[in-house]
Amino acid sequence: MQLSVGLLGLGTVGAQVAERLLAKRREIADRTGVELNLTRVLVRDLERPRGIPRALLTGRPEDILEDPAIQVVVEVMGGEEPARSYLERAIRAGKHVVTANKVVMAIHGPGLLELAGERDVDVYFEAAVGGGIPLISTFKVDLIANEIERIAAVINGTTNYMLGRMASAGISFDEAVAEAQAAGFAEADPSSDVDGFDAAYKLSILASIAFGARVHPDQVFREGIRAVDPLDFRYARELGYEIKLLAYAARTGGRIEARVHPAMIPAHHPLATVEGAFNAVQITGDLVGEVLLWGQGAGGRPTASAVVGDLLDVAHSVRKGAFNRIAMRFDADPPMLPMAEVTTKAYFRLRALDQPGVLAAVGTVFAEEGVSIASMIQKDSVEEGTAELVFTTHPALDAGLQRARSRIAQLEQVKQVCAFLRVV
Amino acid sequence: MQLSVGLLGLGTVGAQVAERLLAKRREIADRTGVELNLTRVLVRDLERPRGIPRALLTGRPEDILEDPAIQVVVEVMGGEEPARSYLERAIRAGKHVVTANKVVMAIHGPGLLELAGERDVDVYFEAAVGGGIPLISTFKVDLIANEIERIAAVINGTTNYMLGRMASAGISFDEAVAEAQAAGFAEADPSSDVDGFDAAYKLSILASIAFGARVHPDQVFREGIRAVDPLDFRYARELGYEIKLLAYAARTGGRIEARVHPAMIPAHHPLATVEGAFNAVQITGDLVGEVLLWGQGAGGRPTASAVVGDLLDVAHSVRKGAFNRIAMRFDADPPMLPMAEVTTKAYFRLRALDQPGVLAAVGTVFAEEGVSIASMIQKDSVEEGTAELVFTTHPALDAGLQRARSRIAQLEQVKQVCAFLRVV
Repeated sequence: MQLSVGLLGLGTVGAQVAERLLAKRREIADRTGVELNLTRVLVRDLERPRGIPRALLTGRPEDILEDPAIQVVVEVMGGEEPARSYLERAIRAGKHVVTANKVVMAIHGPGLLELAGERDVDVYFEAAVGGGIPLISTFKVDLIANEIERIAAVINGTTNYMLGRMASAGISFDEAVAEAQAAGFAEADPSSDVDGFDAAYKLSILASIAFGARVHPDQVFREGIRAVDPLDFRYARELGYEIKLLAYAARTGGRIEARVHPAMIPAHHPLATVEGAFNAVQITGDLVGEVLLWGQGAGGRPTASAVVGDLLDVAHSVRKGAFNRIAMRFDADPPMLPMAEVTTKAYFRLRALDQPGVLAAVGTVFAEEGVSIASMIQKDSVEEGTAELVFTTHPALDAGLQRARSRIAQLEQVKQVCAFLRVV
Repeated sequence: MQLSVGLLGLGTVGAQVAERLLAKRREIADRTGVELNLTRVLVRDLERPRGIPRALLTGRPEDILEDPAIQVVVEVMGGEEPARSYLERAIRAGKHVVTANKVVMAIHGPGLLELAGERDVDVYFEAAVGGGIPLISTFKVDLIANEIERIAAVINGTTNYMLGRMASAGISFDEAVAEAQAAGFAEADPSSDVDGFDAAYKLSILASIAFGARVHPDQVFREGIRAVDPLDFRYARELGYEIKLLAYAARTGGRIEARVHPAMIPAHHPLATVEGAFNAVQITGDLVGEVLLWGQGAGGRPTASAVVGDLLDVAHSVRKGAFNRIAMRFDADPPMLPMAEVTTKAYFRLRALDQPGVLAAVGTVFAEEGVSIASMIQKDSVEEGTAELVFTTHPALDAGLQRARSRIAQLEQVKQVCAFLRVV
């Protein structure tokens, strides 16, 4: 059985996909019964030397999108456009598509899947979230008998690497950015990672599939890690926590909650032990209980593992002439739980005048906002005549926590609310 | 789309499967587009009161195996016979089968899969290993582009619970068995768990799929946890290890290595942190790198999650009339690496006379057997005039380690080799 493949893009992921298809064609065919023929590769610069035959390269998308011999289009260009339009053209031309594009799938995934259903072609996107970790198939197939209750994940390797360095080496956010850039983890403009956009795209894809509802990335509450201070890692350790960029989604009382923000996670929690550029996703289903999937969430080879896995799955369907085996359904406009109504624990660090009445004043604000204190630490501050106060709270409405935060900042005995973090 | 299901067995798993099919039929249909109709249930005792309609129960297997209206047979009886014969009869009758039976799949899996290929029906067995953790589908679909290099797993929850209790409470093996029995984790005869049979069955299934080769449970080297002493947990902690029942398989120089035995695992290794009755499987593929899957490896509800997930996957194939989408291939007689030729690190604990020359004698034996020492601890023994010596080694051939073990035991200065454990 043969499958003719066109590849859009030859960057880090594309090069690994091409390499596997060309160098391991025979082994793959022997093992799976499927011969994957890489027919054409769209590149921007035809002249740049690469490890694959010059005759396969083209600069014209229509050489792939309009070639009737090509059965599957693999998109590994990244970015919203022109990737989205190319995928749509491929689907309209009756081709199956495999994509590693989290932006397109987060914003346009349900629409493309519906279009593919009309045209009776398949859309695969395992590589769009978590590199080679089997996440999409886990929701789509393995856990389908479950009602998914929640997803808690560390799904941005760059910020996880940075937070790990800040925790272990005591460096600042800016130093951590520079290190991550030097190590090749962060872009020149690190915003996509450090402001939580990347994690929000991935969470919107996972939540959409887990809950069968269109969760647009704009509906994901998003707060990045720029405000996390080296001092907070010391308190975290003292209190028994690690600080991670948490991606969390849950179905709560018929509404969907989806949020990305730095969080203190108990040191014994499986997500707290996810180190460096690794990703981990913890899924809670009503039958299966808790399942955790862990691995390299990015990089050419792990992502190629997912892309070629998807290609072989398409090939099995082509052999049997059976497409759209598993139709995914999405509520178009599911009710979302606004961040203000989310219930969470929190951590406050503030600098106050070292004088009587501070605790009473802060305690009164917390009480008035319905926030109950779980623990308190007071230390001398570096600044003469001030003290550093750290509070952790019991679960409270986020709206109450935010009001407490701004009211405490305005107390005359308080110089500054230095840090606010949510606690798992 | 409707699917008519016959259920063989109504124990812990069967009851949960029946409950989900009956109580959540409408929700499952709404979410997946598939109506799963539980038509008949084979039980041993028709008169025992149960939560499902009396009319569904039968004591005659042929009411399910020979009813042409039943499209899928779910086998959750456990044990080799009559489960294997029932599965074969179902397949020969043109029915798809879903099984949670590790014994049958470990010993007869490849044969049943080949028979199913001839009859063009599907055999699903996600529930046979690791409860609801998606393992079979991960190898069969998600990681299929990879050459799998190795599998390292903690896949027996009972022994993991026991070893955890021995480590934390300092209790003996016998006390741990009694506790595991009281907690409902261990059988009256605990041999299947503590002697490593259960783990060997599961490993043989995983290795067969991962390497595309028939790895019979008898080909898995197997050593249980009966000899693990409370004292070894103290040394393990001192040296930075946890003791786990390790299931390990690898492809080494064209040969397959498969073994189950207690092992010291570095405390920072992801498998070292698997607590209580949880399971975790770490898979290394040439593209994906390391992936870890973690969850409840047993129990009615997690296992039912996998069974009903399989049922829905069968239903999707029935709707499209496309079976045996993914043919699994197995080398009938793969070359195996005998345990003697396995390379591993090791831990020795011995009691010796507290006199000059002991170290020289022990060191000479290690050197002559090609074993290089990595670390050594000497402590006073509880017994007057003797010392306790603990060695860890660099990687060596298991044959050399075993010869060293028996030669050291025969040295006149050595009273006993109290413990031998392999080290990861």
